[in-house]
Amino acid sequence: MPVSERRRSFFGWGYEDDVVSADELGWFERAWSQLFHVDRFDPAPFPRESEITLRKPRVSVPASLKAFCTEDKYDRLFHCYGRSVHDLARMIHRRDFANPPDVVAYPRDEADIRAVLDWCGANDVAAIPFGGGSSVVGGVNPPSDDRYRGTLTIDLQRLNRVLEVDTTSQAARIQAGTLGPDLERQLKSTGLTMRFFLQAWEFSSLGGWIATRAAGHYATVYTQIDDHVESLRVVTPAGEVATRRLPTSGAGPNPDRLFLGSEGALGIITEAWVRLHRRPTFRSATTVRFGNYEKAVAAVRTISQAGLYPANARLIERDEAKFTEAGDGRHDILVLTFESADHDLDPWMNRALEICGDYGGEWDRDALAAEDSQRRGAAGNWRDKFLRGPYLREHAIARGVMRDTTESCITWERYMDFQARVKDATLRAIREVTGRAGTCTVRFTHLYPDGPAPYFTWHALGDKAKLVEQFWVIKAAASQAMLDAGGTITHHHALGRDHRTWYDQERPPLFADALKAVKQRLDPHHVLNPGILIDR
Amino acid sequence: MPVSERRRSFFGWGYEDDVVSADELGWFERAWSQLFHVDRFDPAPFPRESEITLRKPRVSVPASLKAFCTEDKYDRLFHCYGRSVHDLARMIHRRDFANPPDVVAYPRDEADIRAVLDWCGANDVAAIPFGGGSSVVGGVNPPSDDRYRGTLTIDLQRLNRVLEVDTTSQAARIQAGTLGPDLERQLKSTGLTMRFFLQAWEFSSLGGWIATRAAGHYATVYTQIDDHVESLRVVTPAGEVATRRLPTSGAGPNPDRLFLGSEGALGIITEAWVRLHRRPTFRSATTVRFGNYEKAVAAVRTISQAGLYPANARLIERDEAKFTEAGDGRHDILVLTFESADHDLDPWMNRALEICGDYGGEWDRDALAAEDSQRRGAAGNWRDKFLRGPYLREHAIARGVMRDTTESCITWERYMDFQARVKDATLRAIREVTGRAGTCTVRFTHLYPDGPAPYFTWHALGDKAKLVEQFWVIKAAASQAMLDAGGTITHHHALGRDHRTWYDQERPPLFADALKAVKQRLDPHHVLNPGILIDR
Repeated sequence: MPVSERRRSFFGWGYEDDVVSADELGWFERAWSQLFHVDRFDPAPFPRESEITLRKPRVSVPASLKAFCTEDKYDRLFHCYGRSVHDLARMIHRRDFANPPDVVAYPRDEADIRAVLDWCGANDVAAIPFGGGSSVVGGVNPPSDDRYRGTLTIDLQRLNRVLEVDTTSQAARIQAGTLGPDLERQLKSTGLTMRFFLQAWEFSSLGGWIATRAAGHYATVYTQIDDHVESLRVVTPAGEVATRRLPTSGAGPNPDRLFLGSEGALGIITEAWVRLHRRPTFRSATTVRFGNYEKAVAAVRTISQAGLYPANARLIERDEAKFTEAGDGRHDILVLTFESADHDLDPWMNRALEICGDYGGEWDRDALAAEDSQRRGAAGNWRDKFLRGPYLREHAIARGVMRDTTESCITWERYMDFQARVKDATLRAIREVTGRAGTCTVRFTHLYPDGPAPYFTWHALGDKAKLVEQFWVIKAAASQAMLDAGGTITHHHALGRDHRTWYDQERPPLFADALKAVKQRLDPHHVLNPGILIDR
Repeated sequence: MPVSERRRSFFGWGYEDDVVSADELGWFERAWSQLFHVDRFDPAPFPRESEITLRKPRVSVPASLKAFCTEDKYDRLFHCYGRSVHDLARMIHRRDFANPPDVVAYPRDEADIRAVLDWCGANDVAAIPFGGGSSVVGGVNPPSDDRYRGTLTIDLQRLNRVLEVDTTSQAARIQAGTLGPDLERQLKSTGLTMRFFLQAWEFSSLGGWIATRAAGHYATVYTQIDDHVESLRVVTPAGEVATRRLPTSGAGPNPDRLFLGSEGALGIITEAWVRLHRRPTFRSATTVRFGNYEKAVAAVRTISQAGLYPANARLIERDEAKFTEAGDGRHDILVLTFESADHDLDPWMNRALEICGDYGGEWDRDALAAEDSQRRGAAGNWRDKFLRGPYLREHAIARGVMRDTTESCITWERYMDFQARVKDATLRAIREVTGRAGTCTVRFTHLYPDGPAPYFTWHALGDKAKLVEQFWVIKAAASQAMLDAGGTITHHHALGRDHRTWYDQERPPLFADALKAVKQRLDPHHVLNPGILIDR
């Protein structure tokens, strides 16, 4: 029933025919060996569809919905989990598929969505909106809540068209289920691009980006999807919401902002008008090495406050740079890129490098002159590892290697203390729970004049049988440290079910009550994504 | 009881000792004479406090609140109205002070606000939050609603301190009642500035900017107050909301965005952490003349999509440029300014001018070389008229001259049609209702890559006795045209009571229901600003 001819792996990152090469896997295995001082990992075999028996569907949709709903085993299997470490650990080490959705719907239009939501409401069935399925925070997992008679996952992949392109205002009306590559493919002939190249770009959808407040390619100015949305269409159990298409407005609280970040708990986003960019024709890119991390942070802060607005300004801490072959381990690396469809960028880059020089930075002059330098050398190495990361996750988990990422946002003046506390808590928890040292490194993904979005990556070698529990001890320690040190629980990975404990500490209690009141009005039977944002 | 030693005019724009000079008034009288082909205006005398008898207060606060509440005549008079055309017409031509607040509170802290809100809730008294009182949309007027036993205005002028400045992250924690000049005065020694120089800057407050989603000095990127807020403190009748101070977050719907634009209907904003800028030390400014308006619009659109981010890019239509002595009437004028605290701006300005040249623009080369050129020549003339505009409003109204402004935002591809329809509807209504031609001209105040914020200024010579009714016919025609042509009812003047009719057409009905649910939770007795955003 899905639209693609290629089937997605029901437990891993890519398509079933995506194979990680022996060379690539070998490279990572050697890196993990060095990291944890072990010779062999004895990977667990990946699960196969044939060895899994799924619970019989607890509910069945009426004939009127059968044209776009299915109870097929593969469809239910594929929609059991997102792609977090603990999701993969449950699938690979426990063969735990005990709570699949009972039905998967592939609506063709808003009328189909209305029809399933009506049916769910009348039959106490939980409805789980599903875009690309890349959630790493438990955003698409069927809830364990016995107040529901069953779970129906609403997979939006058939809503995959660019409906309208406005080349004058540089915007397009796009259906919410459109995945990154398909979206760019449909825009290509217009010369416009969304360039919303987050790491999960291949397997995440426009609607997912909006529902989770994802952040994309640009390190500055137009960072979050929030800055790209002109208007939305949302189907809620109580009816449709269609906002007016505007660059901005001052007319009351912004209605789009109620649904940006609503994670499927208030309605199902079906389409949006979004801002596009002209495909860049000018580019200036290099990498800058810093011998002193605090000075590197100060350089990046100064750039973020200078009004230069680089497209990329990723400061990668030396240990992380070394691991990804972007650095020598003695220098922190700043991957710096300016892009434009309008003008030569030398004055911009020159001033940014002048700032770097003020803080002891030294840059790659050859890269500045080279074409495509963001794809070569240090920057290219880093980029390759970044893009391949998700494909390696299932191989890591099979070997007991947990590699997770957790991100935040905080103001500059608290940053150094924040980083120290998060790293310390994470490393301590890894050692305590696995009995062995791990790593925790950091880079900046996005920059604001008042603070960075730090992205922590940690590695731990756990006990395959206890991986889920071990993961949670480490995750909880890292998350609580982020909250206690003043950051937010997520800059762009969303909340899902996994971040609720810390989100509940972060948000003002009365704001939680306000959201509850909205939920009660828009989703009176609490059908949508139970456990997300608001409790019943 | 107010904190300032200078008393504000109870009916006009400035302080009581602000006098418009005979020269300046003469200039405007001559301009109006030419506009309407009349020799004399016979201005109505301004109202005097001594000639007005106010209704006795219908309610009185208990002793516990008397320390910061007053029933003094001046205080009640001053809080009768905002500063719209019809507000001034009622005061000047009708001496209509029939619905004053019964009590004015000047809370010293949040505890005082909680105490008056509690009392209002228990006694069916409407509470009107009041910042600087510059509303031109009926945002601070006591409601005419007999479900309330009385009205208490909460004037926040005592909450006027910059509490904390973070020079590293370039942000400050500031009390909501702080007016523009006082805010900048307190920041001055830090080298940082908010530069939120809207036209009403002198008499509007930080809390007012936030509550109304005001837009400030910068024409691009950091245009609206929305982009400046890091966190808020809000006192609602149900308790306090304090959001976490963050550059941004992806954790659920943004709580600040519920209160940005809430116009005092959901709570009283008491303080905020806001982003600041370093005081610019580099500046490049000039004016560009265009012979063809459509080409001028295309030039400005191209600049807005080029990633150049000018601080000012005000395209002033030729008739408006002529009236303000910024142009010769045969050219549309673009006031173009780049500002930076970091770098020389020649490359930025040169590229912007190259774009202007592509569309037939010719610029003032002397201005480029001059110091302070944004204060001289065409740009300086325009700036003077802009800053003095509000001071002349009461003199215009006294002469039967209505001069109102109304602004919107819309995407580029619909702009030319939008402009034609709004101007046509406005001019037609002026002629029909006053029996005489008026003017309606437009400029851009803020630019987005996908559309401009057009600002329409209209002049009409009305019948002094019927000015309020005549105003409303013209206002309604202009507003309906804006809505019908696809724009928003306001980009930065807020909704108040005046824009409700069109706001109710603009917002999605289910979003209105969601706001009602929030109001019910945060303000269960519907004490706050009745008639704003949500009906009881």
